[in-house]
Amino acid sequence: MSKKLPKRTENYSEWYQELVIQADLAEHSAVSGCMVIKPYGYAIWERMQQILDQKFKETGHQNAYFPLFIPKSFLSKEAQHVDGFAKECAVVTHHRLKNDPNGKGVIVDPDAKLEEELIVRPTSETIIWHTYKKWIQSYRDLPLLINQWANVVRWEMRTRLFLRTTEFLWQEGHTAHATQEEAIAEAQQMLEVYADFVENTLSIPVIKGIKTENERFAGAIETYCIEAMMQDGKALQAGTSHFLGQNFAKAFDVQYLNKNNQLEYVWATSWGVSTRLMGALIMSHSDDDGLIIPPNLAPIQIVLIPIYKSEQEHDEVIQKLNSIAFMLKEEGYRVKIDDDDSKRPGWKFAEWELKGVPLRFALGPKDLKNHQIEIFRRDTKEKSIIPIENLLSNYVSMLLNDIQKNLFSIAKNRLETKTIFVNNYEELKNALENDCFVMAHWDGTTETELLIKEETKATIRCIPLNNPLEEGKCIRTGKPSKQRVLFARAY
Amino acid sequence: MSKKLPKRTENYSEWYQELVIQADLAEHSAVSGCMVIKPYGYAIWERMQQILDQKFKETGHQNAYFPLFIPKSFLSKEAQHVDGFAKECAVVTHHRLKNDPNGKGVIVDPDAKLEEELIVRPTSETIIWHTYKKWIQSYRDLPLLINQWANVVRWEMRTRLFLRTTEFLWQEGHTAHATQEEAIAEAQQMLEVYADFVENTLSIPVIKGIKTENERFAGAIETYCIEAMMQDGKALQAGTSHFLGQNFAKAFDVQYLNKNNQLEYVWATSWGVSTRLMGALIMSHSDDDGLIIPPNLAPIQIVLIPIYKSEQEHDEVIQKLNSIAFMLKEEGYRVKIDDDDSKRPGWKFAEWELKGVPLRFALGPKDLKNHQIEIFRRDTKEKSIIPIENLLSNYVSMLLNDIQKNLFSIAKNRLETKTIFVNNYEELKNALENDCFVMAHWDGTTETELLIKEETKATIRCIPLNNPLEEGKCIRTGKPSKQRVLFARAY
Repeated sequence: MSKKLPKRTENYSEWYQELVIQADLAEHSAVSGCMVIKPYGYAIWERMQQILDQKFKETGHQNAYFPLFIPKSFLSKEAQHVDGFAKECAVVTHHRLKNDPNGKGVIVDPDAKLEEELIVRPTSETIIWHTYKKWIQSYRDLPLLINQWANVVRWEMRTRLFLRTTEFLWQEGHTAHATQEEAIAEAQQMLEVYADFVENTLSIPVIKGIKTENERFAGAIETYCIEAMMQDGKALQAGTSHFLGQNFAKAFDVQYLNKNNQLEYVWATSWGVSTRLMGALIMSHSDDDGLIIPPNLAPIQIVLIPIYKSEQEHDEVIQKLNSIAFMLKEEGYRVKIDDDDSKRPGWKFAEWELKGVPLRFALGPKDLKNHQIEIFRRDTKEKSIIPIENLLSNYVSMLLNDIQKNLFSIAKNRLETKTIFVNNYEELKNALENDCFVMAHWDGTTETELLIKEETKATIRCIPLNNPLEEGKCIRTGKPSKQRVLFARAY
Repeated sequence: MSKKLPKRTENYSEWYQELVIQADLAEHSAVSGCMVIKPYGYAIWERMQQILDQKFKETGHQNAYFPLFIPKSFLSKEAQHVDGFAKECAVVTHHRLKNDPNGKGVIVDPDAKLEEELIVRPTSETIIWHTYKKWIQSYRDLPLLINQWANVVRWEMRTRLFLRTTEFLWQEGHTAHATQEEAIAEAQQMLEVYADFVENTLSIPVIKGIKTENERFAGAIETYCIEAMMQDGKALQAGTSHFLGQNFAKAFDVQYLNKNNQLEYVWATSWGVSTRLMGALIMSHSDDDGLIIPPNLAPIQIVLIPIYKSEQEHDEVIQKLNSIAFMLKEEGYRVKIDDDDSKRPGWKFAEWELKGVPLRFALGPKDLKNHQIEIFRRDTKEKSIIPIENLLSNYVSMLLNDIQKNLFSIAKNRLETKTIFVNNYEELKNALENDCFVMAHWDGTTETELLIKEETKATIRCIPLNNPLEEGKCIRTGKPSKQRVLFARAY
């Protein structure tokens, strides 16, 4: 903890990695590419899960659980899916170890080779649609609205904690519908659920859009996404929702009897967010002193720290802090008293700043005498001293709301200031060099998209849903374009 | 749904399998040995998770997440662990597929062979203790109280839904302590947490005990367990809590500096319950009409069913049911109105009995006129008609409490009636043939234990904690014994 974080302006990437480690969020494991999510990091992820899970249930979804393993042959059933996806994955070939006859360890038992290799799920469309075939016969079985919380594995050679790891945690929704319109509406609804969550819980403004054909999920007809801007101006995809058309229904032969007693293929969606959101959280709000967590998300909203010299002072101060904590908990706040006797107050101040707790209350003997308490806001670093009795009114809730809004407005301001509209290629390159999002015309071809990517390292993050139609010329080819798209370098 | 369940007396095993399928709890998947947990089954598991998770947190534990994969060599580090465990597991040998040059499908890419094979975790002691080495330096880092909710894989050839599957869901607690006493106290505390949960939430009485050396977890010094009796007289291990001594600390070299600045090995525990508890729930309470779920656990405690002929009747009845449901939800009950127009009331009655909802309220136009409602208890199958206004008092809560207690007392009565104390081998065999638990003297040797197992198919489920010391002679060898142990056939 005594170690200082690197400064963001000096080495953003180092700062990120160090912050994740020092704030006890996650660390690299003995298994290449896999992370350990530490208790404090996991507590934040659990809050994300709880809030999202409630939103999923409010919109009519149920949770279920499908197997970790997928037979290798399933992957080949949807042609685009196998081409664009799922090649870099963990392959299970055997089901037994045995003692090494030549040594002390264990070896793979060659007699326990599987007839068909199994893949550790990189995503579950194939195994789920294989199952849905049994569940769906008639229009009465539709819509089928299911979500799964699970671990998935996509083999990665270069990993970064939370942003890109071989194993990560996520949720994946998989729904089946009688009509195309209903499936599209579902995909759009879930995009709104994600946008609402990221904006109002994580305090991160997003740009909603659709992916280009090149960036689309393999097997999807349309991929809706939300894109967020990190402090370094790079984009991070914060959630995707796919309209899958009838591709998986046809691949797995899932048909239903409609009201006219005719067989039709089912329409599908899938949608997911993952522990990548932890990366978005960190890179959107934190500073050189550590993490900053929006109050609606924070597992600890208020940390209470006693200041004392003698045991008697300690007991008096703690007694008061206990009663304040009790009162705050009764009102529904998530509160912690840091009564660790082995650490000094200054150490604790730095520690909880590093961990991003939105509010810190400190109380010493002098405060006790004056019926006051010191309040520190993590976002603005403002300190103030207020009468303790003020805590009884809605002061705390106003303060937390203000922090929540302030974090959003800082991020929103950054997004707006650093989103540039350009009309030629030089401007695009300049804007990218200045760590900006760029709205520019594009001729709609994958060829041009890939050319721009090769030349600038920027990808088309999305075709924004809110950009108006506007006649223009592609900044790279000069060919006609009807709408600006969002270019950015991305995580 | 029209299909009748087999009768328990005719084919208990068939009845179980059919019930799991027909009540929409789980089904076999395309992957041999792996199950799909369906939404209704998962909702019950989620309730178990919520309640247990709260108990874990109340006892000071935090959740975290460790990798799915374990390097093969880790398994050999704790000698007993590798000998007794973890041989039948999924082995990952490659990390990539590629298109089959000779066909349309995909094949394993031989160039993507891992340097060291990875095992899909069968349990996480090894990867966690490898991690704890980094987390534990001083007595100030102890105790370390961590739990993980995860999927695990143990390869099974003969599987049964929830009871024995290749992949299953569970929680695993892994704690580290400064002293032996504290670690033993932790293992015992978690056994009490499990016993309390199984008895008061699942309404299943348990026998607390310790495992014999032969049945102990591989790597443990002492395995504490709770054993429950199923309706067919077989035992089901409902939870285990292990005192691991310093075995894993030594295997992974986890030492801490004590207050006297001396290095000492850490003391450990681990404890877990799994989706096997779903099997215990089903086999403890259900009947030939389906599942019976104790109210404290049930995801739906009360189902409300409208009875009507005309659309006008439907609207009037539903309006009243809506207001009743609203009132019940306000009071914290988990309630569902089944307003599916395509199903008749009789069908719905049978369906919700099959799914084990503790209470069913039915309301028709005549009831509406008479300000009354029909109430059906799933456990006793009693129907009664009560004034609607009675629902406003604590009638519902009393009824649900009564169901909860009644289920426990039926199971407790079965356990007591079918637990037999015997003093010779013939009596043991007879008692086992009559599907009983048997308390009998045993000479304490693994040799005799295995002999009895071979001859009777019964194992020593545990050495009960509450059995008094008592001089006696082993029922098989006649050698001296100081305490009766519990023999039973088991799942």
